[in-house]
Amino acid sequence: MMKTMIWGPVMAAGVALLTAVTVAQAAAPRTDEPIQPLPAVKAGNPALVELGKKLYFDPRLSKSGFISCNSCHNLSMGGTDNLKTSIGHNWQKGPINAPTVLNSSLNLAQFWDGRAADLQAQAGGPIANPGEMAFTHKLAVDVLESIPGYVVDFGAVFGVGKITIEEVTKAIAAFEETLVTPNSRFDQWLQGNDKVLTADEKAGYELFRDSGCVACHNGPAVGGNSFQKMGVVEPYKASSPAEGRVAVTKDEADRFNFKVPTLRNVEMTYPYFHDGEAATLPEAVETMGRIQLGRVFNKEENAKIVAFLKTLTGDQPDFKLPILPPSSDATPRPTPFE
Amino acid sequence: MMKTMIWGPVMAAGVALLTAVTVAQAAAPRTDEPIQPLPAVKAGNPALVELGKKLYFDPRLSKSGFISCNSCHNLSMGGTDNLKTSIGHNWQKGPINAPTVLNSSLNLAQFWDGRAADLQAQAGGPIANPGEMAFTHKLAVDVLESIPGYVVDFGAVFGVGKITIEEVTKAIAAFEETLVTPNSRFDQWLQGNDKVLTADEKAGYELFRDSGCVACHNGPAVGGNSFQKMGVVEPYKASSPAEGRVAVTKDEADRFNFKVPTLRNVEMTYPYFHDGEAATLPEAVETMGRIQLGRVFNKEENAKIVAFLKTLTGDQPDFKLPILPPSSDATPRPTPFE
Repeated sequence: MMKTMIWGPVMAAGVALLTAVTVAQAAAPRTDEPIQPLPAVKAGNPALVELGKKLYFDPRLSKSGFISCNSCHNLSMGGTDNLKTSIGHNWQKGPINAPTVLNSSLNLAQFWDGRAADLQAQAGGPIANPGEMAFTHKLAVDVLESIPGYVVDFGAVFGVGKITIEEVTKAIAAFEETLVTPNSRFDQWLQGNDKVLTADEKAGYELFRDSGCVACHNGPAVGGNSFQKMGVVEPYKASSPAEGRVAVTKDEADRFNFKVPTLRNVEMTYPYFHDGEAATLPEAVETMGRIQLGRVFNKEENAKIVAFLKTLTGDQPDFKLPILPPSSDATPRPTPFE
Repeated sequence: MMKTMIWGPVMAAGVALLTAVTVAQAAAPRTDEPIQPLPAVKAGNPALVELGKKLYFDPRLSKSGFISCNSCHNLSMGGTDNLKTSIGHNWQKGPINAPTVLNSSLNLAQFWDGRAADLQAQAGGPIANPGEMAFTHKLAVDVLESIPGYVVDFGAVFGVGKITIEEVTKAIAAFEETLVTPNSRFDQWLQGNDKVLTADEKAGYELFRDSGCVACHNGPAVGGNSFQKMGVVEPYKASSPAEGRVAVTKDEADRFNFKVPTLRNVEMTYPYFHDGEAATLPEAVETMGRIQLGRVFNKEENAKIVAFLKTLTGDQPDFKLPILPPSSDATPRPTPFE
């Protein structure tokens, strides 16, 4: 068994009691680690969340009637499409890898360059992006207003009146805020269950922590809380034209700075990096070690880090497939081939 | 209140007792109608059904990694894509309207021309169709065999060994067989609940029945049990090159014969006809009356028939969104843009 330094629980009196003990199995939560367990989902307005769930799955928010939020942020597949870059309207090739929607409420901002402040601001983007859903906010709202089931739902949540795009994105964001994935094996370990990780997984975590990966991948989401340069020690030759944060700030110092992705559920969110160029976790770990830390992990080290990363898979979305209200005779029909 | 001729229940002794009675509200099931309630779903092998559900939702059965069975037979939308013709690999325009998967186990055969004898035979079609999922059976099986979670699932259901396309399609078909939508208001009425339909809905049913629509749209699925010529009284000018049943039988008498679609959940399965040319139910009823029966329904009659048709919406699929097992490092990656 490994020797582990742990913090005892913070005392009710507010005095932290540090006890360095040698234990085979910890009973107390590990509160001194750079990663914390995912917080419980905040209870939202259930009717708002249910409405947002329907909208998230509704391809009628796209010009084609074929692409929904769930097409590229597929909740059956880690909240991603598992493609290098996404497929948009008319089979257009997207410029960047679709980040996972899981735990995205914990991000400091949305999109790889952080151009949206929050989930609500993000949600309107793809709908109106000509390369993605290729619709307009007005046309999306026109469609929803023509669907009696939605008129009832929006009326119940927002009061009777014209539907607005702000209501649409607010509902989608409220649903997305529920997409938190607690209870990973790593979180169980953080919470004091020592038996839940194998020796290799624990060794992988220690390598991850002590090599400096946690400088960026920390906090409850194991990332998502800072922008960092891609290619600190060695330049990264991206296959994507994305410039990073500079596109938002216009500050050259932000060139090639991207939001650090969450590593929660990373086993499910392949391929990796903003350009999706790393097909597998071993490849991603190798590249990150080399270009961000100047460190070459040997095969065994790499495998241990990957083993640790796979312990970050938490409880996946757990809800019934939503049934969408049918269009009415007055609903504008999708035009996929125009 | 309407006067209704009803059959009394069949006696336990096997003697049918016909009682013609005038009632304001029927307590006994209506067993003499040309439409019957949907039968209960047969209990299948739960592990087989669960496996089939995952496969149904898995876009890795397509070349692009983007198109699953559920893309065009969307269970959130009546088991269809609500498009005139479907979108296939590389945004190809499909030649024909995607029929609903709901209650499709009741069809006498699958596809509009009946070229597949059953659901299992159908399931392999789109996977290997270059205009749809554009994959091959071999490549689909290779992908599945590389995914540890599927290897476990297939092993548990079929025994350990190489995965075969027959196992894949058998599982998908087993899941599809569960997609029956009982308990529509019309079924409740057939079962003796007189209050569940409005006067207009009942009048619409009588028009539907007594005008001859039931000649083709009958049985538990209100269709699906025969091939019929599209354009009996008046030729139908199709926008699709589909020839109908002749493509299968090579018998010229079968030219433009198509499988009669089920009308179950027809409110959700727009647009209508094999070419999707009828955008709305009033339009479909108008055309069908005219070209199949030589009958012009006036506006009120049409509205009543449509009101009846909307009573055929039953209980929609009721299950949790499946979570798909992640690919392994060895899994062949999708190639959407090659």
